[in-house]
Amino acid sequence: MILPDCVAQLVRFLSKTPGVSERTAVRAILKFLQLREEEKEELLKAFAGLKRLGRCVECGLPAEGRLCKVCADTERDRETVCVVEQVEDALSVEKLGHYNGLYHILGGVISPLEGVGPEDLAIDSLLRRLKEHRIKKVILALNPTVEGEATAKFLADRLKGAGVKVYRIRHGIPFGGTIDMADELTLKKAFEDLKLIAGG
Amino acid sequence: MILPDCVAQLVRFLSKTPGVSERTAVRAILKFLQLREEEKEELLKAFAGLKRLGRCVECGLPAEGRLCKVCADTERDRETVCVVEQVEDALSVEKLGHYNGLYHILGGVISPLEGVGPEDLAIDSLLRRLKEHRIKKVILALNPTVEGEATAKFLADRLKGAGVKVYRIRHGIPFGGTIDMADELTLKKAFEDLKLIAGG
Repeated sequence: MILPDCVAQLVRFLSKTPGVSERTAVRAILKFLQLREEEKEELLKAFAGLKRLGRCVECGLPAEGRLCKVCADTERDRETVCVVEQVEDALSVEKLGHYNGLYHILGGVISPLEGVGPEDLAIDSLLRRLKEHRIKKVILALNPTVEGEATAKFLADRLKGAGVKVYRIRHGIPFGGTIDMADELTLKKAFEDLKLIAGG
Repeated sequence: MILPDCVAQLVRFLSKTPGVSERTAVRAILKFLQLREEEKEELLKAFAGLKRLGRCVECGLPAEGRLCKVCADTERDRETVCVVEQVEDALSVEKLGHYNGLYHILGGVISPLEGVGPEDLAIDSLLRRLKEHRIKKVILALNPTVEGEATAKFLADRLKGAGVKVYRIRHGIPFGGTIDMADELTLKKAFEDLKLIAGG
């Protein structure tokens, strides 16, 4: 590597992330070198702040203290919990700008092939939350994969009798997509779950 | 942003790099949180090291001191300079594993439309290097764009009489490509620059 060791080290780290090539990582770091001194200082502080970061004891989102921003926010709807696989999924839901409830990071899905069982996921902490707080609604926003489906079913069973309504995000033809482009399974699910729009 | 401010700030910075989405940036940072303490510590040190980084006074590559690793390396061929537009291009050439000379980062190409003139590029420092050091060979590895071509021509003119041989990387059909897939200009250039392979 012809670049200084500190650059090489950061490039190596960044390019471990899927979607980040070595070239992209180098570019990101060169961008840093072009910043003004104050901006550099600020980012360095932010980076140093990562060291103190942990997970929210309630939902598992990254947090600076015991609770994440969502769980600490008294303005949010504290009766609804949206269960997602990963932190990134919570960010996608949040971007919609519609959802105002809490989150729960499951940490993955049940996958016997990859050796992930229910005990590896944040299921007990979810059940504890439901018991300790007045949660009325659980939305399972797991990915529509075979494992995601199976995990949703497993969770729905475990949540029976917990006194909460459990919802699943609906499958269907993606908006802006076309019927002939949709895969068979999606189309099948969409047909099984027709929406009555007139004559009801 | 539901993530802690330090994460949000780093995500904002990283996702300014072309090719890095917000999701990818979040993933990179979450990856950091999963590292062992020693690894975190090392990366933090590397990141702090960026603050001390400057440009090599000779070639313009990022450097920790006055000279970059390449210019400080006495094992390299110090009679050859490869002129590239950007730091990333030098890394691509370096990856070939064939080139063992020095580099010169031009910092772009002449582009009247974007208001970039010869005075905005590291041309004077190139001429100075040629004068001060015993450089015999200059390879112009600029991109095969209209601006890259014009800049190569401009540099070739300026280097006349400097007592150096000036080379341009050759245009042609990309290896593994097909003739019918090549664009017209590439094919034209390839035909203008035929290689005699027998009967010479």
